[in-house]
Amino acid sequence: MLEDNDVTIDVVQGVLSIRWFDCTVTGMEAHAGPTPMALRKDAMQVATHIMQEVVASAMRHQPHGRGTVGMVQVFPNSRNVIPGRVKFSIDLRNSTDALVDQMADEVKAFAASLSAQTGLNVQNDLVSSYPAQAFHDDCKNAVASAAAKLGYSDMPVVSGAGHDAVYMAQLAPTGMIFIPCLNGISHNELESATPEHIAAGCNVLLHAMLARAGVAATL
Amino acid sequence: MLEDNDVTIDVVQGVLSIRWFDCTVTGMEAHAGPTPMALRKDAMQVATHIMQEVVASAMRHQPHGRGTVGMVQVFPNSRNVIPGRVKFSIDLRNSTDALVDQMADEVKAFAASLSAQTGLNVQNDLVSSYPAQAFHDDCKNAVASAAAKLGYSDMPVVSGAGHDAVYMAQLAPTGMIFIPCLNGISHNELESATPEHIAAGCNVLLHAMLARAGVAATL
Repeated sequence: MLEDNDVTIDVVQGVLSIRWFDCTVTGMEAHAGPTPMALRKDAMQVATHIMQEVVASAMRHQPHGRGTVGMVQVFPNSRNVIPGRVKFSIDLRNSTDALVDQMADEVKAFAASLSAQTGLNVQNDLVSSYPAQAFHDDCKNAVASAAAKLGYSDMPVVSGAGHDAVYMAQLAPTGMIFIPCLNGISHNELESATPEHIAAGCNVLLHAMLARAGVAATL
Repeated sequence: MLEDNDVTIDVVQGVLSIRWFDCTVTGMEAHAGPTPMALRKDAMQVATHIMQEVVASAMRHQPHGRGTVGMVQVFPNSRNVIPGRVKFSIDLRNSTDALVDQMADEVKAFAASLSAQTGLNVQNDLVSSYPAQAFHDDCKNAVASAAAKLGYSDMPVVSGAGHDAVYMAQLAPTGMIFIPCLNGISHNELESATPEHIAAGCNVLLHAMLARAGVAATL
């Protein structure tokens, strides 16, 4: 987003609320050849519809909604056997706890309706729940002021990822600074940032810390 | 099908034509949190639509069409990473080579269209191709005659699975006999047949073999 907007400093406003579920669809494994289509209880086919609803739910709750199916396990996972069981992860995120809970309710209602319609069992187990974390006004202001003072463009963005800062925020006033990465890619060997952007981030961090410490920066 | 029709002996007419493909969808792996929905290249989401088309194609080509996605591999298969690559198996079957090739063409055309629409690469690799195998008239007649002579009900069915008899049929006149299994389940620990049905199958086999050997059965 920083790259798309040609902005140097992201004054991070907070971190999205996250819900993680494991969804398990249980059908009946059977041979892919003799079993007529009408008699099948194909767990993978039912799972595909729920996987699509995970994304559809995020699309209905923009701008901050996120929906991801990252992990899929198929049993028995054999080329000529109709899957009897499919387990997959659901990652839902949004800017507030209420919004992400609404997304979760929608996905669960869709799954229940599909289960009733197909006769296959669908179970959603909550794995983790991380509340939304807003950062401290004084810290956000210190970051924005330092960017302005140093002549860097800045914009406010809510982070979609979890960070150590979420846990720090429970102990002390906390903020974060982001700089642009090439094509927005992070957590990947392709991650790339320019020396100029890295220097800008460090300078903003220094001046924000000095301001918070009550020290007049003369650098 | 035998159970549903309360029939004892299936005079197997032949074996369905089979095509096996590996389908690989390549997107871009990225973090499930920071990556906005609109910027994603989610290989799993694209894969779900092709998986549904595999079944839809079989439904359009009844009564013998079969479509199964039995094996799925997701990379990197991590809860908070948008899948960058998904590989899955496609198993298509129908009563003639022409029909199963038509199903394969439909699935491939759907995948190509989805690839153009989403910008994600979709590759379909043929893994195996088994032609349809009709069994020999003399053998089918011998089975049907033996069932009639012994007073067992019979019906003609095309087998959806591969069998050793497919390879035997390339060497000599070949036929097969099926009997009912509880709930149609085979290749599974739940497979169950009654002693009466097993005896009926053995009796039909004996009399069909004697007839083919030109021996008058006096049993």
